[in-house]
Amino acid sequence: MNIGIVGLGLIGGSLGLKLQSLNHTIYGIANNEFNEKKAKEKRLANFVSCDLSLLKECKLIILALPIKDLIRPSQELVASIPKDTIITDVGSVKEPIVKTWENLHPLFIGSHPMAGTEKKGVESGFEGLFKNAKWIITPTQNSNLDAIKTLSRLIKSMDCEIFHASVKEHDEAVSLISHLPIFLASALIETVHTKNNQSLLDLTQKLAATGFADTSRVGGGNAQLGLDLAINNQINVLNAIDNFKNKLNTLESLIKRKNWALLSKKLSEAKVIRENFIN
Amino acid sequence: MNIGIVGLGLIGGSLGLKLQSLNHTIYGIANNEFNEKKAKEKRLANFVSCDLSLLKECKLIILALPIKDLIRPSQELVASIPKDTIITDVGSVKEPIVKTWENLHPLFIGSHPMAGTEKKGVESGFEGLFKNAKWIITPTQNSNLDAIKTLSRLIKSMDCEIFHASVKEHDEAVSLISHLPIFLASALIETVHTKNNQSLLDLTQKLAATGFADTSRVGGGNAQLGLDLAINNQINVLNAIDNFKNKLNTLESLIKRKNWALLSKKLSEAKVIRENFIN
Repeated sequence: MNIGIVGLGLIGGSLGLKLQSLNHTIYGIANNEFNEKKAKEKRLANFVSCDLSLLKECKLIILALPIKDLIRPSQELVASIPKDTIITDVGSVKEPIVKTWENLHPLFIGSHPMAGTEKKGVESGFEGLFKNAKWIITPTQNSNLDAIKTLSRLIKSMDCEIFHASVKEHDEAVSLISHLPIFLASALIETVHTKNNQSLLDLTQKLAATGFADTSRVGGGNAQLGLDLAINNQINVLNAIDNFKNKLNTLESLIKRKNWALLSKKLSEAKVIRENFIN
Repeated sequence: MNIGIVGLGLIGGSLGLKLQSLNHTIYGIANNEFNEKKAKEKRLANFVSCDLSLLKECKLIILALPIKDLIRPSQELVASIPKDTIITDVGSVKEPIVKTWENLHPLFIGSHPMAGTEKKGVESGFEGLFKNAKWIITPTQNSNLDAIKTLSRLIKSMDCEIFHASVKEHDEAVSLISHLPIFLASALIETVHTKNNQSLLDLTQKLAATGFADTSRVGGGNAQLGLDLAINNQINVLNAIDNFKNKLNTLESLIKRKNWALLSKKLSEAKVIRENFIN
């Protein structure tokens, strides 16, 4: 299949590599000439250009752009997508993107691959990124059934597990499981950064080990992504933070009141609950 | 060297395997006959027994016991350690342990290897646990210099990097870098466990990916350890939670007030700060 990928960063570049390995012909759109050159060197697509007219060859187009560019797409981008082409995006918030694109194009299906690293940019893509990843699609009552089928087949062919959700359910679920951890990790990093106590800071930096590295990892990622999530999933993110604060306050109060029996119960429960989230 | 290890769980068992590979003779003390049998099967030590008299052979003894058993050691344990034997512990809180053992034994040096997994028990040890780990020792003005030297050489021979800190500095630093993440991870796990919304819970469980797995990992660990840290490092842990809440409140307020410029700055700063903690 001729597949267009708009944006060749971590997600777009990884898609380009994986889909070429499955014998599709990939038309990649870079956002500037520097990235075009890099993408050609890394062979992220069979054809790479900054020229959107490349997309007229494509039966399916994946918009692998930052959330803000998905919500307010350029006129040129919208104009260069043929009306009989299936399109999807890979944004980690769905409601505003699906709202925008369903009005712009009859064959749009929102989607979200749950895959990433802390890297970004045209150098960061790699073929294995999507192996065993979960990939949510968020069709609506307006969605074209053949477009859903074609997209689903393509996603499954990349060794991904596919899930259906409404845009609202998706955005609430990811605010808990994916967006909240970013803000917690960021606050944790600031907490250990004891600026007014240099000797403590030195020691803390030396002692930081895998526990801190893992707990803070998503706070070391793409800052633009964290910002885009806060902007575009604001209410869900605020609710998640509020719920988290209640849970943390409970633990804090148990520690303060030395209620070790109940603290022990809570910590043991969390261990069991976590197992249902990790497969 | 003849080395005794009291307790053959994750840390003690891993030490037994590693130190045997370095041609030391290991005398391992198990806490019951079932674990004694398991430890023998796994060859965690050259000699394994529940009988503490085994320790009389040892030039150096490592107490790899839970914190509570280090702070209130059994009479039998204390009585079975020869006075000319160097001892250390591996507990993740130092002040109460060092206070206890300096009064009990002239050649005690407190220490803390920063290594672990979410596993525990006699089945969980493995030889590679300490590879490139950071290992803090917390000598005091009462510490014997030869004991410090011998212990330091042994730690370095296990491919660990050694750091010195006072007990106070150690306990404050680890409350930030190591103990705080446990309570955050635990509260995060409870937050995503939306008991009163089963369909959201189902979706959230399906979508949980590496971001959630990493951020919550230390909340899925040994609950007894979390409890012991809260009990024995209470003030530092409460301070750390309080500092964290202030940082999270700031992020929350920026999101609420849509102060995207400052939120973006904070997220970018956290990314840079984190790099100084990860080596």
